[in-house]
Amino acid sequence: MIGRTNVLFDRITVISPDLSGGAFTMTDAYVAVRDGMIVHIGPSRPAALLSLAGVEHETYSGSGRILAPALANAHGHAAMTLMRNSADDLSLHDWLFSVVFPRETRLRAQDVRAGTRLALCEMFRSGTGTAADMYFFQETVLESFVEAGARLDLAIDGKRRDATGALVPAPEDLERFLALARTEGDGRVAISLLMHSVYLYPDGIYQGMAAIAEDLGLPVQVHVSETSREVEECVARHGLTPPAFLEAAGFFRTPTLAAHCVHLMPADREILARNDVTIVHNPSSNLKLGSGIADVHAMQRAGIRIALGTDGAASNNNLDLFHEIRLSSFLAKGSTGEPAIMDAATALRMATVNGAVGCGFPGVGILEVGKQADLVVLNVDRASMTPLGDPMSAFVYSADSSCVESLLVDGRMLLRKGELTTLDEERIRAEALESARHIVSAAS
Amino acid sequence: MIGRTNVLFDRITVISPDLSGGAFTMTDAYVAVRDGMIVHIGPSRPAALLSLAGVEHETYSGSGRILAPALANAHGHAAMTLMRNSADDLSLHDWLFSVVFPRETRLRAQDVRAGTRLALCEMFRSGTGTAADMYFFQETVLESFVEAGARLDLAIDGKRRDATGALVPAPEDLERFLALARTEGDGRVAISLLMHSVYLYPDGIYQGMAAIAEDLGLPVQVHVSETSREVEECVARHGLTPPAFLEAAGFFRTPTLAAHCVHLMPADREILARNDVTIVHNPSSNLKLGSGIADVHAMQRAGIRIALGTDGAASNNNLDLFHEIRLSSFLAKGSTGEPAIMDAATALRMATVNGAVGCGFPGVGILEVGKQADLVVLNVDRASMTPLGDPMSAFVYSADSSCVESLLVDGRMLLRKGELTTLDEERIRAEALESARHIVSAAS
Repeated sequence: MIGRTNVLFDRITVISPDLSGGAFTMTDAYVAVRDGMIVHIGPSRPAALLSLAGVEHETYSGSGRILAPALANAHGHAAMTLMRNSADDLSLHDWLFSVVFPRETRLRAQDVRAGTRLALCEMFRSGTGTAADMYFFQETVLESFVEAGARLDLAIDGKRRDATGALVPAPEDLERFLALARTEGDGRVAISLLMHSVYLYPDGIYQGMAAIAEDLGLPVQVHVSETSREVEECVARHGLTPPAFLEAAGFFRTPTLAAHCVHLMPADREILARNDVTIVHNPSSNLKLGSGIADVHAMQRAGIRIALGTDGAASNNNLDLFHEIRLSSFLAKGSTGEPAIMDAATALRMATVNGAVGCGFPGVGILEVGKQADLVVLNVDRASMTPLGDPMSAFVYSADSSCVESLLVDGRMLLRKGELTTLDEERIRAEALESARHIVSAAS
Repeated sequence: MIGRTNVLFDRITVISPDLSGGAFTMTDAYVAVRDGMIVHIGPSRPAALLSLAGVEHETYSGSGRILAPALANAHGHAAMTLMRNSADDLSLHDWLFSVVFPRETRLRAQDVRAGTRLALCEMFRSGTGTAADMYFFQETVLESFVEAGARLDLAIDGKRRDATGALVPAPEDLERFLALARTEGDGRVAISLLMHSVYLYPDGIYQGMAAIAEDLGLPVQVHVSETSREVEECVARHGLTPPAFLEAAGFFRTPTLAAHCVHLMPADREILARNDVTIVHNPSSNLKLGSGIADVHAMQRAGIRIALGTDGAASNNNLDLFHEIRLSSFLAKGSTGEPAIMDAATALRMATVNGAVGCGFPGVGILEVGKQADLVVLNVDRASMTPLGDPMSAFVYSADSSCVESLLVDGRMLLRKGELTTLDEERIRAEALESARHIVSAAS
């Protein structure tokens, strides 16, 4: 692992959510990072330098650059990069049962390692410093994230098969991973209970799993009301919508990342609003799989925290949050007919602090003295960003991931002016191609 | 103007619409371009070289590259780049009447030149070779496109004020521009009648303008049914929807680019389907301004040709067709709940041949021997395009404009491995900033 870098960002344009629920822009700002923390933001270079007195530091010229919090991808399955562009234009059923699931039966730990590391290359290059992950071979995922230097909210299974073959709640893996996160995670790994959805597990197990989450004080990652079929079947089976079913089973007593939430009733939003739930909006994936358009404006009005996710690369087909930022704003405006809603500052909050908090990193996502130095630098010195206009608008509506020049997580420069410092990209790509051949060509 | 380049694309992956309404992919292909035309496509290098016998040519390595038709942006207002990121999150009325129109009263020819050239830099860098344009100071627009080497479908006003101040049909400008396109356009400029919309002109003028289009055999560019308010007011005023009103006035007897078409009735689609109309779908702009989601699937089923447009940068906020390609497919799937519709090949057709044909360039948009060499080369040798998977899916769902490495129009390499060859980008950006300051700061 590389060390932390102390940096003076020298006369740069800053955009960030603020502590009061809004956002701010500061041009000609001086930002100092020391020992992984933001120690100064302001208009004075001498004051910024003072905060770095006595430590070696580098100077990062802010000319033609925007500094913002690193992005947080609050829902995904990183290693699904292996299935990129090889399962498109299919019905959801064919996609899942004829393509994705058969391929996943062939996954080996080395494939998940290759796919996760490939995902990390792409995430860093598109400004993402924190990601939630829900997939197989979680030791491998944890190891890959820790080595690369990213933050991870890792979903771990809380059930096992008993002697009769029945699925039963089981906290052992969770306890093991909690210990692993403490010893290996360097403060950058959070552990959550993996609760796939209301439809994939036997009915009897939900209460027991909710009890595990509560007993261990564990956050939960769960897919909620992604498709209308999921909602209809849940109502038919339990007489309850997915959020109501989960609440009745005892969920939502710990912080929860609820992915998708495309098909919510008003009462569902009330349930999510009165608990510590972060809804993860995945607009590209929801459109591409034909799931629909989540009503984020209604969620906002209900007071629910909303974050953004890419979902897996098999339904996106990349891990570029700049697509989701732009799309989340556009889609809310277009589907409601209200162009003034979901403004640039709101989209920025969703992609940064809301995701970081939802993933269990409350010290991340806001540019503020005392916060952790998870930062992205955009190079906006190009025709497609000229004139720059309002920097917040520029970030949300005009920028794309090719503007991303550098990424810091926890004060470590994981992408330095276009160069990945912790990932051997050529080797990772070669290994990913081999794994993709193994799972894709063999199974489909 | 630079000369044409004869090129052998050496073992490259080709994707393209085909002549029968579908699309094809050819890996390890050899493509030869000579005197501005595609003279060979096939699996044999010697055969490709034979087609270049006796002429100097360069060899373009196809390793890690995709070759596709250059993109066509079938609806836009290029010089609105000057207003990028400075008019966001507003209601449509405020956007138009408090921001855009006041700024446009300050436009000088030099501003339109700067903004158009800035747009051309961005278009070339994002793979666009052909654009429709509807704006002010059209001589300047024509000159800028011709000098840069792009194809242009230029909308020209067909009315003037008479001695009493009333607007009357007037073909003079159209005739002048038709002559200018012949003498100056080098075969790359088409002239259309500018018909803004059903709501901006006095009632009495529509028939006369339709007659001009028919008399001169001129195509028409028109905004159609962009907002529900436009439709409601047209029905209230004329008892007809916008397409029905235009048809009744005598339009659609010549080829027509109908931009937006967000709010169509089934009978409207019948009108557009039975005439030579290309609907230009502008998904980003329609979402961002809150206009709604055009039902492109219904248009497709009605047999209407659909192209893509970015609209102006004040409502997008860029001119990157890769956003529109991806979004047009995703939005159709997501808004209908049918993930198998609007597949990658369909999106590719919309962005290439459909737009080129709609803009009056039937020899462009398909990779086929005898077609004109308007081509884009994508560099897909990167983590976010690994594995590549299906090249058509990769182009539509994973690629973004930062993959664009080279662009040929009419056999001229306007972007050569990242370098613009006909546009002085630094100077253009400086001039655009000056013009943006003039129109934006002064007026708003």
